[in-house]
Amino acid sequence: MLPYPGALTDVLGIEVGHHTLAGRPTGCSVALARAGAVGGVDVRGAAPGTRETDLLDPANLVSVVHAVLLTGGSAWGLDAAGGVMRWLEQQGIGLRVGAAAGQLVPIVPAAVLFDLHLGDARIRPDADAGHAACQAASRQPPRQGCVGAGAGATVGKLFGMAHAMKGGIGSASVVVDGVTVGALIAVNALGDVADPASGAPIAGARTADGQRLRASVGAVLAGERPLSILAGSNTTIGVIATDAPLTKAQARRLAGAGHDGLARAIRPVHTMSDGDTLFALGTAQAKALDFNVLCVLAAEAAARACVNAMAAARGARIGDLYLPAATDLTGGQR
Amino acid sequence: MLPYPGALTDVLGIEVGHHTLAGRPTGCSVALARAGAVGGVDVRGAAPGTRETDLLDPANLVSVVHAVLLTGGSAWGLDAAGGVMRWLEQQGIGLRVGAAAGQLVPIVPAAVLFDLHLGDARIRPDADAGHAACQAASRQPPRQGCVGAGAGATVGKLFGMAHAMKGGIGSASVVVDGVTVGALIAVNALGDVADPASGAPIAGARTADGQRLRASVGAVLAGERPLSILAGSNTTIGVIATDAPLTKAQARRLAGAGHDGLARAIRPVHTMSDGDTLFALGTAQAKALDFNVLCVLAAEAAARACVNAMAAARGARIGDLYLPAATDLTGGQR
Repeated sequence: MLPYPGALTDVLGIEVGHHTLAGRPTGCSVALARAGAVGGVDVRGAAPGTRETDLLDPANLVSVVHAVLLTGGSAWGLDAAGGVMRWLEQQGIGLRVGAAAGQLVPIVPAAVLFDLHLGDARIRPDADAGHAACQAASRQPPRQGCVGAGAGATVGKLFGMAHAMKGGIGSASVVVDGVTVGALIAVNALGDVADPASGAPIAGARTADGQRLRASVGAVLAGERPLSILAGSNTTIGVIATDAPLTKAQARRLAGAGHDGLARAIRPVHTMSDGDTLFALGTAQAKALDFNVLCVLAAEAAARACVNAMAAARGARIGDLYLPAATDLTGGQR
Repeated sequence: MLPYPGALTDVLGIEVGHHTLAGRPTGCSVALARAGAVGGVDVRGAAPGTRETDLLDPANLVSVVHAVLLTGGSAWGLDAAGGVMRWLEQQGIGLRVGAAAGQLVPIVPAAVLFDLHLGDARIRPDADAGHAACQAASRQPPRQGCVGAGAGATVGKLFGMAHAMKGGIGSASVVVDGVTVGALIAVNALGDVADPASGAPIAGARTADGQRLRASVGAVLAGERPLSILAGSNTTIGVIATDAPLTKAQARRLAGAGHDGLARAIRPVHTMSDGDTLFALGTAQAKALDFNVLCVLAAEAAARACVNAMAAARGARIGDLYLPAATDLTGGQR
């Protein structure tokens, strides 16, 4: 039983699928919008890895998105988007640029997270992995925790991997007035995760004995120095979606509101070592809702998805590295 | 003999390779910077297809680029960047993110152009095509015209494909004070191409009899209505490089200066139907030069590369469609 109810799949017109690789903890996750959705993106971390984000600029022409791919494997994972395009083409979904065979261009923005330090880095999500995630997609609530793009996610790395914990992917949704806003977030942050509703820490950097949470922000305020962390070796990525209609400019702003949810749940977030990127989709399959209300819901759904991700994660041992999950720390130990 | 001398390969630290597909006019071109280069991008067209451009934001962390890929195939072509990454990894080139095998991430920004209306659209540059372009790369001046990313390029489409002409890829370089600025531009514009040095039209939309250039801008000023053109069915993409050192912010501005060169040579340019995108690279293998001077050289090199592209292009017949090149129109006919 996860702390918060709902999932991205509660949004009308959205399906979610994961593919988790066998050889090491990595994988990818796809949010499908078969009928198309108006899309936007907000890149707030300093070390992003992305594909097809420039077309989402509200000043640019194409506003329809057919799927969003979230993937592990760092920049290597971008190839998985090609497999999503191939699957969509097989379903006859995409921008029709001519009547002949092959003249269909599915629009599949993508973002990656870094998980190459867990296991054999030669194993990375590829086009077949992206295709498999589409094959697995459905309206059913997706699995959460260490699956798909969250398979190799970790958190609490400000004082080094030896003190880190297992992250994962989470989802949540909120409903107001018949309109749903959902989030799917793969939490692979440098920082710690807390529940913004209570302020309670959930997962993050641990004390030297590995038994308790250290509270990274408090430690920094007390003058402790973070380890110099490898560029881009983190990154939280996700999708916010609503069944309300959105303009393309609103889709970008809704993604930004999602980042406020990350800011509340992840501490610190948006660092020079994170490539934090959120996409937003509007399927227009429900009625319109005041846009400020939608933004409140987006931030809330994103924060809740982060909390669920930690609650659903499970500890892992990879070689010499032990990464406990939130469920491995008792309440008293926090 | 092309109108303007030099090529992108005159820039110290840059190699160029093309791969042209056999089944239809399409392909890809790569600019390699084996020792790394500081990179930037400027996306000025409204229908771009890109990969790894967000990391080039000067506010973001990673500044080194190992290659830039230019490719046909619309968004499908983005997969070719994965083949460039694979080739670089085989050479041991990339960001080293750990000591173990596979922990190398080559940084390969990419942009695509639309050529799916020429021949069998199921044939598109893929990862193997990107790899082959790297295999073919060298310091030798690259072939120009209908090769690589320029293989399926066309120009002068404002009044429909029936009046269009063949485009291509061109290169040029300029040297001041021992510092070189070069450009490699695949010209696939909605608009016409002129030589800004003389104002002379070179290629573009043709008159109803197909024998002469129509001068698209003049026609629009005279009240003629362009055909409604398919979203994104054009796009000019390219690389500007210098062996002067650049900051990341300067790299972005140098790409912008390159767009001024496009503005002079292509009329109209940067339209809602073009995804015009230029990358800029600084290899720091020569001395520094006043940045305003570098920007003048970048615009000049870009404009000259466009003119060379038209001069090197050759006419083609694809199915029922005949696309003459600039060399097929005599001077008098222009």
